[in-house]
Amino acid sequence: MSLIVQKYGGTSVGSIQRIRNVAARAVAAQRAGNQVVVTVSAMSGETNRLVALVDELSGGNYSQREYDVVVATGEQVSTGLLAIAIESMGVPARSYQGWQVRFVTDGVHAKARILDVEADNIRRDLNEGRIVVVAGFQGVNDQNAVTTLGRGGSDTSAVALAAALQADFCDIYTDVDGVYTTDPRVVPKARKLERVSYEEMLEMASLGAKVLQTRSVELAKKYKVLSSLEEGTGTLLTEEDEVMEQVVVSAIAFNRDEAKITVLGVPDKPGIAASIFGTLADANINVDMIVQNISASSGDTDVTFTVAKGDFKQALAVLKDPVANMGARDVLGDPDIAKVSVVGVGMRSHSGVAQRMFKALSADGINIRMIYTSDIKISVVIDEKYMELAVRSLHQAFELDKDSGDRVRG
Amino acid sequence: MSLIVQKYGGTSVGSIQRIRNVAARAVAAQRAGNQVVVTVSAMSGETNRLVALVDELSGGNYSQREYDVVVATGEQVSTGLLAIAIESMGVPARSYQGWQVRFVTDGVHAKARILDVEADNIRRDLNEGRIVVVAGFQGVNDQNAVTTLGRGGSDTSAVALAAALQADFCDIYTDVDGVYTTDPRVVPKARKLERVSYEEMLEMASLGAKVLQTRSVELAKKYKVLSSLEEGTGTLLTEEDEVMEQVVVSAIAFNRDEAKITVLGVPDKPGIAASIFGTLADANINVDMIVQNISASSGDTDVTFTVAKGDFKQALAVLKDPVANMGARDVLGDPDIAKVSVVGVGMRSHSGVAQRMFKALSADGINIRMIYTSDIKISVVIDEKYMELAVRSLHQAFELDKDSGDRVRG
Repeated sequence: MSLIVQKYGGTSVGSIQRIRNVAARAVAAQRAGNQVVVTVSAMSGETNRLVALVDELSGGNYSQREYDVVVATGEQVSTGLLAIAIESMGVPARSYQGWQVRFVTDGVHAKARILDVEADNIRRDLNEGRIVVVAGFQGVNDQNAVTTLGRGGSDTSAVALAAALQADFCDIYTDVDGVYTTDPRVVPKARKLERVSYEEMLEMASLGAKVLQTRSVELAKKYKVLSSLEEGTGTLLTEEDEVMEQVVVSAIAFNRDEAKITVLGVPDKPGIAASIFGTLADANINVDMIVQNISASSGDTDVTFTVAKGDFKQALAVLKDPVANMGARDVLGDPDIAKVSVVGVGMRSHSGVAQRMFKALSADGINIRMIYTSDIKISVVIDEKYMELAVRSLHQAFELDKDSGDRVRG
Repeated sequence: MSLIVQKYGGTSVGSIQRIRNVAARAVAAQRAGNQVVVTVSAMSGETNRLVALVDELSGGNYSQREYDVVVATGEQVSTGLLAIAIESMGVPARSYQGWQVRFVTDGVHAKARILDVEADNIRRDLNEGRIVVVAGFQGVNDQNAVTTLGRGGSDTSAVALAAALQADFCDIYTDVDGVYTTDPRVVPKARKLERVSYEEMLEMASLGAKVLQTRSVELAKKYKVLSSLEEGTGTLLTEEDEVMEQVVVSAIAFNRDEAKITVLGVPDKPGIAASIFGTLADANINVDMIVQNISASSGDTDVTFTVAKGDFKQALAVLKDPVANMGARDVLGDPDIAKVSVVGVGMRSHSGVAQRMFKALSADGINIRMIYTSDIKISVVIDEKYMELAVRSLHQAFELDKDSGDRVRG
């Protein structure tokens, strides 16, 4: 008997009929001899409807504690409806909200991080033959207040739950039928990957940064990304192996949800970086890429970094005083940027990836604003208007439309 | 400094603008030097929308635990939005759901009864200068599952909270500007009562039977029913006094939400009533009026009682076997009935009320199907189609359109 965690996004539970389909899938998995936990998002459109109510009321200036109270109801409705749909098929079911599981998070409303998952009641229900339906995206902090996890939060909930329950499988159902070399809406020739390594997946937009933070993706044994709308094999998430390492680049990821900020003319003294990034951390603003250059002539420094577009204005506001105090020359911001990344575990052992990437972008006249590299990823920041062009250029440059065996090596 | 519990129904929070109005009222009460707790219902239409989702999915056959999970989200959204609206006016606020307060209830989903209110966190917030916003209608049972209180539940929440906090005032804001001698939509000449006794209020439809069950209405010092849409004096709920006792009948209440069931030819033996009503109690079906007649000729009995229309089919189903086992002749049901009641603390000391009531109904050709009397109330069951006619007849017969001083005495 295996324990399976299934996760369904908003589109998969977007109507009464689709909720019935999800219920049928969960029931089939149980009848095949498995214990089944289902994590669900809000019905598609519901979160936007709730956020619009908050915005209309507040003009965008609101308590994030109360924002979480409002938007968490979307997932709550999905769990109750799905449990009812499962029971109507003759299988006992029970729903749990974040505070009932419980998903203990830190206190950062609207983008909380999971600290602990207490899943004893879920184990008991599974042993009693129930299918358990869990609200994704939600948690509860040490003040007993509702928190939400931010974008991609329901994936995080599923992964954290799979880890806590030591699940054998974690199947992420979405409205696509697997993980692609890039978004097929941008590159029609994008190919579905049969397998992708955890690390590569973590670098891609579809699971997002939150999964990386929880670091729990490695703990569950076997992940799959599947379509909830049609049958198919999906994409298997696995440990990397030798075959994978021969593929230099597996996918092109992109993100237009970031903004760039540059602090100009920072005196080259100890403690300056701590002052900038400490200020942002105190305001619960996450920083993604950071690049720093020391000017040989003036002896001072330009520090450039990216934040989420939603945090852009607040970041500029909180930096104003500290930047003035440290004697920096100016702060510049640019929200009209995009990040494009090439991802692949194989690039560890292959040189020339960066060169080929920069050459492809240059050939299409795309200026690179920032460069950031990690073990299995090279990211560049470019003007947002060139994003689709850059993704298509790179997809072609790394021959991702071909089977990996047919590609040239970096 | 007084502690005020304000309660607002669904119409009062039915739009963003109305939520702002409620916030302004709460803030004004606090700025006048009071501590303020606000209990809210779901935005009007929201509970119906959620119930429709459940019905569409299940065809009416669903787990009441999960029904509660879905419908409780309506109040949750209201609390978050109202807290945001209050904070936008510069006063700190905090929302609480039933499980956070907490309202401990029994385990009967969809019509739970409040057993205990733990309001320490609310007291702390009040002392720190916050306005506290509490979800009406909700509780949590000893399994940590969400429960709802059934119709009129938000009134019950407000009253129970006022009692637990030993509030000085409990103001029930509604879409009418007070308590009337009967529903003005049925009798245009209905008059607003300046004062009404707790006991009379409890017998009337607008607060309903749940308040009676909690018995907590007497514990708060001063209740008022007020309009949230316009300024006004409302109706004060008070202890009864001599002036009130001189008014024989204060109001005509009615309820078309009941159905009548008759068990025919019940053997006149001990334990039979216990069998019938024990069966209904086990199914969590509340029984309202009970009438029993022993036939002098046959020595057996007809037992007639009323249940909520929503429980009608289930009541007939669960009674089938026990009724056959006890040797009763048949079970008859009639959902097309209405209950009409005359209410008044003065009828304790006045005779002739029943006679005048029956005479008025008879004069308009209305057949009485059942009669039930209590200390301050006489109720009759009639065919539903005559309900409005009966209410108008009785309102006129007891001269409720006139000031009490001008009325004839019973």
